[in-house]
Amino acid sequence: MNYKLIGKILSYILFIEIGLLLPPLMIALVADEYPAAFAFLKTLGVLAVTGGILFAFCHKSKPRFFTKEALVTTGLSWILMSFFGCLPFYLSGAIPSLVDAFFEVSSGFTTTGASILPQVEALPKSLLFWHSFSHWIGGMGVLVFLMAILPLSNTGSGYTLKILRAESPGPVVGKLTPKLSQTAQILYLIYFVLTIVDAVLLRAGGITWFDAFCLAFGTAATGGFGVLNDSFMSYSPYIVNVTTIFMFIFSINFSLYYLLLMKQFKAFFKDEEKRLFIGIVVVSIALITWNISGMYSTWNEALRHAAFQVATVTSTSGYSSADFNQWPALSKSILLCLMCMGACAGSTGGGFKVSRILLLLKNMKRNVKQYQHPQGIEIVKMSGARVDEQTLVNTNVYLSIYVLIAIASFLVISFDGFDMETNISAVIACLNNIGPGFSMVGATGNYSAFSAVSKIVLSFDMLLGRLELLPILVLFVPRTWRKH
Amino acid sequence: MNYKLIGKILSYILFIEIGLLLPPLMIALVADEYPAAFAFLKTLGVLAVTGGILFAFCHKSKPRFFTKEALVTTGLSWILMSFFGCLPFYLSGAIPSLVDAFFEVSSGFTTTGASILPQVEALPKSLLFWHSFSHWIGGMGVLVFLMAILPLSNTGSGYTLKILRAESPGPVVGKLTPKLSQTAQILYLIYFVLTIVDAVLLRAGGITWFDAFCLAFGTAATGGFGVLNDSFMSYSPYIVNVTTIFMFIFSINFSLYYLLLMKQFKAFFKDEEKRLFIGIVVVSIALITWNISGMYSTWNEALRHAAFQVATVTSTSGYSSADFNQWPALSKSILLCLMCMGACAGSTGGGFKVSRILLLLKNMKRNVKQYQHPQGIEIVKMSGARVDEQTLVNTNVYLSIYVLIAIASFLVISFDGFDMETNISAVIACLNNIGPGFSMVGATGNYSAFSAVSKIVLSFDMLLGRLELLPILVLFVPRTWRKH
Repeated sequence: MNYKLIGKILSYILFIEIGLLLPPLMIALVADEYPAAFAFLKTLGVLAVTGGILFAFCHKSKPRFFTKEALVTTGLSWILMSFFGCLPFYLSGAIPSLVDAFFEVSSGFTTTGASILPQVEALPKSLLFWHSFSHWIGGMGVLVFLMAILPLSNTGSGYTLKILRAESPGPVVGKLTPKLSQTAQILYLIYFVLTIVDAVLLRAGGITWFDAFCLAFGTAATGGFGVLNDSFMSYSPYIVNVTTIFMFIFSINFSLYYLLLMKQFKAFFKDEEKRLFIGIVVVSIALITWNISGMYSTWNEALRHAAFQVATVTSTSGYSSADFNQWPALSKSILLCLMCMGACAGSTGGGFKVSRILLLLKNMKRNVKQYQHPQGIEIVKMSGARVDEQTLVNTNVYLSIYVLIAIASFLVISFDGFDMETNISAVIACLNNIGPGFSMVGATGNYSAFSAVSKIVLSFDMLLGRLELLPILVLFVPRTWRKH
Repeated sequence: MNYKLIGKILSYILFIEIGLLLPPLMIALVADEYPAAFAFLKTLGVLAVTGGILFAFCHKSKPRFFTKEALVTTGLSWILMSFFGCLPFYLSGAIPSLVDAFFEVSSGFTTTGASILPQVEALPKSLLFWHSFSHWIGGMGVLVFLMAILPLSNTGSGYTLKILRAESPGPVVGKLTPKLSQTAQILYLIYFVLTIVDAVLLRAGGITWFDAFCLAFGTAATGGFGVLNDSFMSYSPYIVNVTTIFMFIFSINFSLYYLLLMKQFKAFFKDEEKRLFIGIVVVSIALITWNISGMYSTWNEALRHAAFQVATVTSTSGYSSADFNQWPALSKSILLCLMCMGACAGSTGGGFKVSRILLLLKNMKRNVKQYQHPQGIEIVKMSGARVDEQTLVNTNVYLSIYVLIAIASFLVISFDGFDMETNISAVIACLNNIGPGFSMVGATGNYSAFSAVSKIVLSFDMLLGRLELLPILVLFVPRTWRKH
């Protein structure tokens, strides 16, 4: 294991975090929020010292960099980012418990949006900004950002692809351009522009620029932290509808927007994942609208809430325009299933990913066919291209690890003694980076009642979900830390 | 597709069912239960006519018999058995709805033990016997029985193995002896002797021979139908403990008992599945005993109930010695996970099977290793022997089909509007052939409130679970019914 190179990249990550903490620090200074400003300054100090020491020890590193190193770097950098990122909340006293603060900020970076805060409005503006900004940072990934600005060409050719694979969501990561740093730049540009458009449209709906940007950060990253305690329940239909549309936009593979920009319409329409996603979304909205229509005065209102909630759950944002915990069983069941499904690969959304489901379905179909006709050989295709066998194996293994982690987490948090609906939905909501679940952790509830152990387990579920298991899992495999 | 041969085997199955209906008919005649006796007689008539017509059309069949035919035969024979088997309940008026009667008898044959009856004591003795006897018939499988008595050697050499594979639980089916009909005979003999021993021990506990045999049928098949409405809650600790032990005995691969009989102790102890199973059971009993100790006056009592409930859920029987729906969250969560796990392969128990979990774990471990060291090649071993790659692929596909069916069933039964705990546990309890779940379908509840559509879905879940998906699934694949 090339510890020095890992250390060097981690020191870069810490330096980037310093840069990212400057905007909230400015806000704290401008708004005269002194305990918060000091907390930000102390955090900057800790980051500078830790990053400096790490860099001093590790900057002379060999360029050997394998998949193992890429996974470990990615896993550790997210844990460190979350740890240092939670210090402003802890040091300012806004969140008095370190475990709670870590939970809240992991939830931010992983774009989960699960909260232990009973009153989000009570936060100072600077912390509220950092809260939402952490979503936006985590949405696209910090390492992808690092690659976009710093190609690190001395670390071997496969370096960037390995990092991109480890940090990006979905079973297959495609290159948009032959140069990967360029791919990262394009992705960030699309992300940046769409966020600005969303913020401008929200501002046009009559909310402040501050609120508009905070909500746009949460929407773009499919995070779910808002600025009001009741999420979207008190906003106008216009704000709700704009957010619904943008949550869907951010649920779709960003490569497709690149195809649109390049006018490759044929390739755009051929994408099977997007088609399945749209199909599932339309059917779900229709069923839920029908199911909840009795609870609202007009079909229009029922449709608005149904569309918003389907968007929030498939995109894994976790906002709420209504208390869907009170909805009838069918609607809740559909939402629970959509929570597990999640968004498309290559988007900022979390969850199991529509493309993985598509691959599992295709593999199932092939397996049943082969059982009937053992002599036939079938290949699996997606969007017209052949899927290699290793991807199919990995997708199946992904499912089994995913189920195992869900079951183990469910058993651990059951020690706290809450009801089954709370426990099942809390694990699903954290592992899929949604945020709220049902019952105690529903739209109007929060995660504060869980024990410290459960909060740590759920924080790791969020990290596992955001990084798609392996980068966090390898940290717990003793073999990773052996010399050979 | 060789329709004629399938028809011929199905006609044999119907003739066997005639034989199996004779004991309850005798009881009806001896006990003067006339509506029941007439219902049995009418059912015999329908079976004789249907079987006769089928045999007349199909007895001249060609010996071509492939996996497809084996799967279709198995799937259809279980559906037909359940349909004709439910007629005595329907025709006697004991269960006025045909859907309910089909649910109840599928639940019997698949050894699920889920019931729509609010008062099982209200059944006439003959129907009560048929109720429990259906468990015993389904436990080992009717086609295995057919093979034991009728080798059907004119249908090609692979015939019996294909049927055995289709009907027997577990990812790999081993041959105990070179001749498969002999293997089937040995398995049936072990089953028969252990059932008698259980019945004798229960009789020694002071219950009637009738009750002892009914309970022994349910225990041997890991079914769960009892003779009292409160299941085991009013029996003595002796009866509860005997049943706990026998439920565990029937959860373990029957081949291991054959190894013991042959004095192959080394092979017996090498079996990894049994070791994992015992480990999980011991830890679960310990945790639940600790968790529920406050609810019972002595540790001994808590241990008895914990052991019984763990036995009932891992063996997928579904009896209850206490209302575990009232137990704390941790105990319920453990039971829910054990419900999914189920028993060992090659036993009469249902569920996902411990050996499949073991295969998934081993495959996961290999996949993580290979990710770290892509150049290494690892093989997967179980109990010392190499597992072939196709078995690993099949096990992974099995998991994904299993999850998909669970989710689809969950969505359909959610239309009825019951709570999430009921819906989730009802699907898990039926798909894994347990019987009772939690909340509305808990130990003191039943399935009667579900709609007809939900009951049919849950009946097919039971059949899918008992036959391990494929034999039922292929019936719904259009390709199966095509000429080529």
